[in-house]
Amino acid sequence: MIYFVTPTHFRPAQRADLIRLSQTLAQVPNLHWILIEDSDTTSPSIGEILKRTRLQFTHINAKTTSKKKMKYSDPSWKLPRGVEQRNAALHWIRTQFSSLRRGVLYFGDDDNTYDWRLFSEMRTIKKAGIWPVGIVGGLLAEAPTLFDNGSVSHFNALWKPERPFPIDMAAFAVNISLIIDHPGVEFSYSVPRGYQESHFLQGLNLEKFDLEAKADLCTKVYVWHTRTEKSVLEKPLEEKVINFEEADFAPLEAHALGLEL
Amino acid sequence: MIYFVTPTHFRPAQRADLIRLSQTLAQVPNLHWILIEDSDTTSPSIGEILKRTRLQFTHINAKTTSKKKMKYSDPSWKLPRGVEQRNAALHWIRTQFSSLRRGVLYFGDDDNTYDWRLFSEMRTIKKAGIWPVGIVGGLLAEAPTLFDNGSVSHFNALWKPERPFPIDMAAFAVNISLIIDHPGVEFSYSVPRGYQESHFLQGLNLEKFDLEAKADLCTKVYVWHTRTEKSVLEKPLEEKVINFEEADFAPLEAHALGLEL
Ligand SMILES: O=c1ccn([C@@H]2O[C@H](COP(=O)(O)OP(=O)(O)O)[C@@H](O)[C@H]2O)c(=O)[nH]1
Ligand SMILES: O=c1ccn([C@@H]2O[C@H](COP(=O)(O)OP(=O)(O)O)[C@@H](O)[C@H]2O)c(=O)[nH]1
Ligand SMILES: [Mn+2]
Ligand SMILES: [Mn+2]
Repeated sequence: MIYFVTPTHFRPAQRADLIRLSQTLAQVPNLHWILIEDSDTTSPSIGEILKRTRLQFTHINAKTTSKKKMKYSDPSWKLPRGVEQRNAALHWIRTQFSSLRRGVLYFGDDDNTYDWRLFSEMRTIKKAGIWPVGIVGGLLAEAPTLFDNGSVSHFNALWKPERPFPIDMAAFAVNISLIIDHPGVEFSYSVPRGYQESHFLQGLNLEKFDLEAKADLCTKVYVWHTRTEKSVLEKPLEEKVINFEEADFAPLEAHALGLEL
Repeated sequence: MIYFVTPTHFRPAQRADLIRLSQTLAQVPNLHWILIEDSDTTSPSIGEILKRTRLQFTHINAKTTSKKKMKYSDPSWKLPRGVEQRNAALHWIRTQFSSLRRGVLYFGDDDNTYDWRLFSEMRTIKKAGIWPVGIVGGLLAEAPTLFDNGSVSHFNALWKPERPFPIDMAAFAVNISLIIDHPGVEFSYSVPRGYQESHFLQGLNLEKFDLEAKADLCTKVYVWHTRTEKSVLEKPLEEKVINFEEADFAPLEAHALGLEL
């Protein structure tokens, strides 16, 4: 079983991105989708997207502390994103699956692009798998370079290459047993920018040589760190979207935003 | 049969967008995908994406005249996009299908988001169908307002509402028979910005009252004019991407760009 963990937050394109992602995931065998909304409650409209996939799923919510929540106008790199949501998923896995110990955990953001072939690659992971990620960190693809025996030699990251694991969240998946065996490991606001992945993988006691190279020895790109362009809205509408919890929307607008079923 | 016509042009995220779209379309029954590359030749890597869908498909190319081709740094609205590619598809349909006359034609761009339910809506179109489009023209959804009898009263577009059909290319589909019966109708560089849709629909002799309201009487959003954020690349790499035909890429880069199979 693949546990696909997706933090998701409200914005105009959230519904579009989740529907597009759900239509990709719906065709993946043995996938359990853990969706964690960055909100006070779970949304019925998102629940309905999950149900329509006919996948096994878990639908929970974990709201980002207000001090750590970015504003609509903030640049996307200002604060780490998805920390509390991914931790909620880790907690869920540890309480539900402490005896199961089988399966693979992958952190799959809601606006990335996933080639179906990525999921086949994950199924053979013993400890931790690694593969290239397209369009990230200023590169067309971030990827490890391998020794002749297939183990990881170094990484091609340009940004902060001194990180223990200078890779994106979408570049790896780990066996659930590691999550159970290291019960304290989670994401954190107290690590420097770009160190979430390193902090997590080091917490699991992983070293470079533990990484299993997938995707044809890391020569294929099966996942892209795409980003959906921020919606350009007329000014009063943007104001309403920023204060969506208090705003009054026309029925079609509320439906478009996923605020109504 | 739904003829889904997609112009597509080279850019870093092209392969990601096409794979994501192909995974949505692959599950749609009775869909024939007409993909027109804005290039001198068709690309094997795109042909391979098409083949993997197991859909019926047509893979052609039609390069935008250099005078009408936008530069990498141009704002996206500067010139009309997809004109020559959509015309190539119209030509293909008219030569291949002059006797068939059955099916529906839809212009579906490569970076939009399509809910599977949109395709069921299209199948019952007699002349022309219309539905809301999410996140376009400064609105959360552009949509027609209907009279009590279900026919179109007006449109909610904010931008150039004086257009005969102030709607997006993704807002309508037409019966193939109209294309065959109006052999001269095509897209054009000589119409004002934003008038491609109006020019085309007026050419087919359609009036507002011909439009069949779909998607639960235009109360549901099943397609979004999403845009994939332009990839931020380190400067020398951006230069190479702009001159990709002459540039030398590492194998992984070439694969990520779809320049190699
Ligand atoms: O306040 C936020 C911002 C982001 N996210 C989610 O965290 C993931 C990563 O965020 P984003 O895609 O904005 O980051 P980037 O692509 O820039 O790394 C996505 O699934 C988002 O929906 C979240 O839950 N709360
Ligand atoms: O030079 C170009 C620019 C765009 N397109 C295609 O035309 C469609 C519309 O373009 P785009 O999505 O960039 O336009 P927008 O979303 O801004 O209307 C897309 O399928 C593009 O791949 C093309 O064939 N050649
Ligand atoms: Mn993202
Ligand atoms: Mn587009």
